[in-house]
Amino acid sequence: MSEKTEAAGAVSDDGLAERHNARMARKKEVVDKKIAAAKRDAGVLLVTCGNGKGKSSSAFGMVARALGHGMKVGVVQFIKGAIPTGEEKFFRRFPEEVSFHVMGEGYTWETQNRERDVEKAQLAWARAKELLTDDSIGLIVLDELNIALKYKYLDVQQVIADLRARPAMQHVVVTGRGAPPELIEAADTVTEMQLVKHAFAAGIAAQPGVEW
Amino acid sequence: MSEKTEAAGAVSDDGLAERHNARMARKKEVVDKKIAAAKRDAGVLLVTCGNGKGKSSSAFGMVARALGHGMKVGVVQFIKGAIPTGEEKFFRRFPEEVSFHVMGEGYTWETQNRERDVEKAQLAWARAKELLTDDSIGLIVLDELNIALKYKYLDVQQVIADLRARPAMQHVVVTGRGAPPELIEAADTVTEMQLVKHAFAAGIAAQPGVEW
Repeated sequence: MSEKTEAAGAVSDDGLAERHNARMARKKEVVDKKIAAAKRDAGVLLVTCGNGKGKSSSAFGMVARALGHGMKVGVVQFIKGAIPTGEEKFFRRFPEEVSFHVMGEGYTWETQNRERDVEKAQLAWARAKELLTDDSIGLIVLDELNIALKYKYLDVQQVIADLRARPAMQHVVVTGRGAPPELIEAADTVTEMQLVKHAFAAGIAAQPGVEW
Repeated sequence: MSEKTEAAGAVSDDGLAERHNARMARKKEVVDKKIAAAKRDAGVLLVTCGNGKGKSSSAFGMVARALGHGMKVGVVQFIKGAIPTGEEKFFRRFPEEVSFHVMGEGYTWETQNRERDVEKAQLAWARAKELLTDDSIGLIVLDELNIALKYKYLDVQQVIADLRARPAMQHVVVTGRGAPPELIEAADTVTEMQLVKHAFAAGIAAQPGVEW
């Protein structure tokens, strides 16, 4: 065992290493089988929901991944829009690669006007449909669409029909609290971001680069 | 109500709009109070854990946010590294802004060599410590560090001590399954990404731009 290892206090002995290697070999078998079974290439419909932090940011991480693979990306933000976010400022640097549309006016509890929220959501969906019929776009982020569906600003069946009609290899990520069950049913990959704790509770304000 | 709204089948009537507005007004009060209470600026320690998709991608979304706000970012990938990812290819475009370190050799069940995994993790931590003592770096991603802690490749108390000693305004995101309770206790914001479903189960292979 190297000095470096001891210095940082890692736990290690020969028995542990052997057991670890045996366990990893079994794990490799399981993982290999799973991967071998998942062979089909297809556009994936992802939904991120729940009360925890990470829904929109995970979608924007996928934007970075997609750009790294040379794909073109579309983003429609349904609710956010009152203040310019870090993600907007950053991805607008690449107008050839990212088509970025901020269609909201802040969270609905800030606007307090249902008619206006509905109209804004309809306009945003029209923009989303343009992206959903463009097969040069590899990944689309529909940020906070779940909230627009939760408050019935949009009809969930129409939204699902439009999503199903998209190009076969196009990926779509839908984010936000309150994802309707019909959308979860239609999706391929769904993650519920569970709040374990949040810095707000410790009195820390929303920090640029973290929350926006 | 506009024709556009009716065309997309949104549910709306005057009573609904009134109830909605009253509800949103109450919600605004609650949210405003919470935000007013969270006033302190501080570097945030975030942990993303759980079995669902979105742990690393949410960290990389925060990288995009931070870059949008003009911050410098450091990334250390503890486990991944066997294949070049989209996030690596993309963020390496900005060497002045992002210091990107891939220190792993793939998942541990691929390597099956504990000694080597421990050594790699120690080297990765040494790199992380350089970033954690550099106050020009606003956000650090320690990708899959949780896995290195889970397998005791690193000592959790030493890791927490080093995290606590970082510059006051530096944000750190730690990702990966199996976050140890001590790290969750030390963190400000913790999200557990819960697997609701995954495209693998439907036979869809890991897609570039989504999983890597």
